[in-house]
Amino acid sequence: MPLKALDYESLNENVKKVQYAVRGELYLRASELQKEGKKIIFTNVGNPHALGQKPLTFPRQVVALCQAPFLLDDPNVGLLFPADAISRAKHYLSITSGGLGAYSDSRGIPGVRKEVAEFIEKRDGYPSDPELIYLTDGASKGVMQILNAIIRGEGDGILVPVPQYPLYSAAISLFGGSLVPYYLEETANWGLDVNNLRQSVAQARANGITVRAMVIINPGNPTGQCLSEANLREILNFCYHESLVLLGDEVYQQNIYQDERPFISSRKVLMGMGLPISKEVQLVSFHTVSKGYWGECGQRGGYFEMTNIPPKTVDEIYKIASIALSPNVPAQIFMGLMVNPPKPGDISYEQFIRESKGILESLRRRARIMTDGFNSCRNVVCNFTEGAMYSFPQIRLPPRAIEAAQRAGKVADVFYCLKLLEATGISTVPGSGFGQKEGVFHLRTTILPAEEDMPAIMDSFKKFNNEFMDQYEDQRGYSRM
Amino acid sequence: MPLKALDYESLNENVKKVQYAVRGELYLRASELQKEGKKIIFTNVGNPHALGQKPLTFPRQVVALCQAPFLLDDPNVGLLFPADAISRAKHYLSITSGGLGAYSDSRGIPGVRKEVAEFIEKRDGYPSDPELIYLTDGASKGVMQILNAIIRGEGDGILVPVPQYPLYSAAISLFGGSLVPYYLEETANWGLDVNNLRQSVAQARANGITVRAMVIINPGNPTGQCLSEANLREILNFCYHESLVLLGDEVYQQNIYQDERPFISSRKVLMGMGLPISKEVQLVSFHTVSKGYWGECGQRGGYFEMTNIPPKTVDEIYKIASIALSPNVPAQIFMGLMVNPPKPGDISYEQFIRESKGILESLRRRARIMTDGFNSCRNVVCNFTEGAMYSFPQIRLPPRAIEAAQRAGKVADVFYCLKLLEATGISTVPGSGFGQKEGVFHLRTTILPAEEDMPAIMDSFKKFNNEFMDQYEDQRGYSRM
Repeated sequence: MPLKALDYESLNENVKKVQYAVRGELYLRASELQKEGKKIIFTNVGNPHALGQKPLTFPRQVVALCQAPFLLDDPNVGLLFPADAISRAKHYLSITSGGLGAYSDSRGIPGVRKEVAEFIEKRDGYPSDPELIYLTDGASKGVMQILNAIIRGEGDGILVPVPQYPLYSAAISLFGGSLVPYYLEETANWGLDVNNLRQSVAQARANGITVRAMVIINPGNPTGQCLSEANLREILNFCYHESLVLLGDEVYQQNIYQDERPFISSRKVLMGMGLPISKEVQLVSFHTVSKGYWGECGQRGGYFEMTNIPPKTVDEIYKIASIALSPNVPAQIFMGLMVNPPKPGDISYEQFIRESKGILESLRRRARIMTDGFNSCRNVVCNFTEGAMYSFPQIRLPPRAIEAAQRAGKVADVFYCLKLLEATGISTVPGSGFGQKEGVFHLRTTILPAEEDMPAIMDSFKKFNNEFMDQYEDQRGYSRM
Repeated sequence: MPLKALDYESLNENVKKVQYAVRGELYLRASELQKEGKKIIFTNVGNPHALGQKPLTFPRQVVALCQAPFLLDDPNVGLLFPADAISRAKHYLSITSGGLGAYSDSRGIPGVRKEVAEFIEKRDGYPSDPELIYLTDGASKGVMQILNAIIRGEGDGILVPVPQYPLYSAAISLFGGSLVPYYLEETANWGLDVNNLRQSVAQARANGITVRAMVIINPGNPTGQCLSEANLREILNFCYHESLVLLGDEVYQQNIYQDERPFISSRKVLMGMGLPISKEVQLVSFHTVSKGYWGECGQRGGYFEMTNIPPKTVDEIYKIASIALSPNVPAQIFMGLMVNPPKPGDISYEQFIRESKGILESLRRRARIMTDGFNSCRNVVCNFTEGAMYSFPQIRLPPRAIEAAQRAGKVADVFYCLKLLEATGISTVPGSGFGQKEGVFHLRTTILPAEEDMPAIMDSFKKFNNEFMDQYEDQRGYSRM
């Protein structure tokens, strides 16, 4: 028989080349163990509700009413829903083109895009144009749309931080481009050194690659750092001189766990740099309802904002978005609610603030518990999680552990993380899934387990790590086999 | 200044090549006119709720409760929701991994995939494996995933019916493949002649193209025909002998408006053909919550089922789905509800059946009103809409109309549809957006306007068409200019 198109051997090679560690070997093994009845703590993906975070009440009330608009005519509706949720639901229904069951415009509901523009203007102090804001099914889909427009073939390179969130490496592989890594400095709290960028670009050019765009993840995933304004200015200057599009992944902008370095958007810094830079650097910024303290991952809502992108390109991106008709409408409502939450004086305001604060303050404490926990472990060092929702400790694996991993046919950090999973049920992602310097090993875990479970989880980690190090460290005097 | 990556001139050429007529020139003009205050009847896209179709009550109740799970603890919940909606909501929440706010597995919630498998088994009489069913954000996203896996470059061809739904041409352009058209026979009620297929494949091969897959849309979009079992058997035989993957777009399987030719799935026919064909032909079948009589387009829910696809390929498709983490969870619940609706004896059963019947019977009447209406117009002929939700009348444009269109720089059917839009507010899609034989012109309209509005819309169309024909037909004796 000849090969058929969906035989593995005959698939699109770009599809086969994709690697996606967040749902890779570790996740698959964890899922197997769970099926076998083992209790798994899924810290492989930033999925707060899966680890027990409760949804915020107000947005869920509004979306529930939008899903069941007939309730608005029910005389008992006030027994279950507050008046401000009812009026917001009516507002959103009035700006859809037929409720949640109708496709919206492929760029999203105009009224919600306007709310997003108002949010951005308020955040940054510069006006924002709703026509340049497109709503998406989560930020990932937006990133993929933009990379798809940029990448023409393997000669096109995209600068990506290492360690990186594997969406970028996966999407670049899928679209047949080249990932050009720039290394973040772990010893400088995962800082970004523009000299590293220059070197990366020079080396890519020497290999015949045209570097077309640069990705920053701020706050960092998996690395948790917040970029300073000065650093962002350097980056934008660099993009200007190298004619690079800047892709600003800012999905963790609400997840900040220290006060020294608040989030500042790439767009705000760009606008503040004045001419010619402020009118020249092409910037696409991404945000989502999945992260922040909402954590509404399963709804799949996001947006991107385009700055200095020519109108003909904006139209092309609209056209591509049209192929799948529209982003899901309920998540568009969530996006509207996220950028336009209850205000002082609204009936639901106090509850909303109480719930929001509760989540954010707990995340801040958890970031601290986790970093401190890791730093108390043998051969483990970990930068503080300034923002986002991950810890990315370095694990100094003894040479004998690395050899044992080689014998088992595993990358050394995969070997460590698998043993951690089997011993404790903690499902992490090996650092090799995000990229790291040669011979240096990490793991990524979210800071999302419930606060009350955190001490036990860190104890369990510490116990495992101790036993692992006992087993593989030479100086402990164990047999070398 | 050098070109930047998001300058139009430097975009990915495949992106620029994409055409998407359903949201193309006509839609953009209609949106402009709407902004200017003109009343527009959007029949360009199958979007029932946008034209006033009410959502079914039961599924909306269930999803509203899933969005607001705190209502389940409210003593007043029974005042607004029936007990069976409450228990279904509890069921769905129990099979998610943290409610609607948590990412699901990238293939979808296992429990919903099981419900889909049971639906397929009941529909076809052959067992179906949930592991081979992936949930998606609408069927379009699924089609794109599969085409992306199949297409390696412009040497790879996909057989697509002409006229076709432009998702196929757009996605094939985007992925850099080649569309290989096969023509449906308008005079044979848009029937599919296997000899046409053979010719198309032979011609593609002569041009150096490897034909890898074949698309069928059953019931047809935009053409509305239902394929007979005998025809499906011929198609599957053809795919077997030519080693083609069959992509069965069956999103309109519940939209049937005659009794002679009920929907029959490709999979059922394949399974019934026996060895070796039943184990050899690679088939991917698509379904959605957007169509049928649910019309829940804005929710973006769908699935595809893979038959005879090797496990390694199934894993690759899983990996690609993982990049965007998970399909939106609320729409997964809609999919579960669609394949597993209320049963006789359930509290909500009668209302559900009444609502469902009301919609389907009205669609059946509207299909008839529209076909008859078109056929009563001068120079218009239209096959009956056996299924799906479109009419695709042929408009016999007089030579002088074609010349006038050329002078205006428009394709002739675009010219006609634009004039129709300006005169009546009826927003259709020109046949050229779907493909048609040289020199033959059509338009596509949905059958979705409210039944009570239908006579007035058809009168308005008829009046416009008469005036148009008066203006451009020679024999009427008007001046030639």
